[in-house]
Amino acid sequence: MAELHQACAPLAFLLGTWQGTGTGVYPTIEDFSYVEEVSFTHAGKPFVAYVQKTKDPGSAMPLHAEAGYLRPQGGGRIELVLVQPSGIVELLEGTIEGSDIRLESAAVLGTASAKPVTVTERRFWADGEVLHSSVAMAAMGLELQPHVVSELRRLP
Amino acid sequence: MAELHQACAPLAFLLGTWQGTGTGVYPTIEDFSYVEEVSFTHAGKPFVAYVQKTKDPGSAMPLHAEAGYLRPQGGGRIELVLVQPSGIVELLEGTIEGSDIRLESAAVLGTASAKPVTVTERRFWADGEVLHSSVAMAAMGLELQPHVVSELRRLP
Repeated sequence: MAELHQACAPLAFLLGTWQGTGTGVYPTIEDFSYVEEVSFTHAGKPFVAYVQKTKDPGSAMPLHAEAGYLRPQGGGRIELVLVQPSGIVELLEGTIEGSDIRLESAAVLGTASAKPVTVTERRFWADGEVLHSSVAMAAMGLELQPHVVSELRRLP
Repeated sequence: MAELHQACAPLAFLLGTWQGTGTGVYPTIEDFSYVEEVSFTHAGKPFVAYVQKTKDPGSAMPLHAEAGYLRPQGGGRIELVLVQPSGIVELLEGTIEGSDIRLESAAVLGTASAKPVTVTERRFWADGEVLHSSVAMAAMGLELQPHVVSELRRLP
């Protein structure tokens, strides 16, 4: 197990695997809920790997997934680069204040077959062993608005 | 274990975990070699998740990593969306012909702190239990040229 890179010290509160539930809304779809698992891992380098998967609470069928890397920049600044199997990639920039990470997209791009998403805002905020996450997005020609929010607990 | 989505049938040859070695060159850096592990997994949905990690052959220190999703489009067309901890995301489009996937970037974007990469070409080609992969890139203001090539074997 590598020692945590000093650049990642502000992200130490995220490390581990978290499980919980979330809910989603958007004007173009039915409201939904989901079971979520998120992991934040490091390899001794100046970034933290993020992997997220959700599934249907009833059928346990996989719903969403995404993966990316958090890149602390010093001075409370942070970048997040992210990829989604829906054919979308995101570059986000933002701040770490204590256990609260707030990010806004600098760019969102999709492949030819992806649904149009133009702006995202993401937040991860922890209260000890409880992690909250939220995503807002401007998609399908609509304005930026809340999409999903979840509450997770760290696995021992 | 979910059944493979029919859209992913052309990618069945990739599924599993592969290990091997590779070499890298670029005019701006010293030649290097690496040990690589790649996995291709599916969850019954119309994409295949790709995760890659490399390490130094001597020290076993982690070198590169990347993650993404292969999205077959039918008619031998395929998309790959990819994220790198170096702060770079790629959208690639290309073809599947038998066990040969060739992709060219439609877009490469980096965060403010990432090194400038403007074009990539990626290829995965298999010969039974041997998988080859290669990446060419235009980076640091230079023309598109070979960067890494590796040869991997599927774990039983």
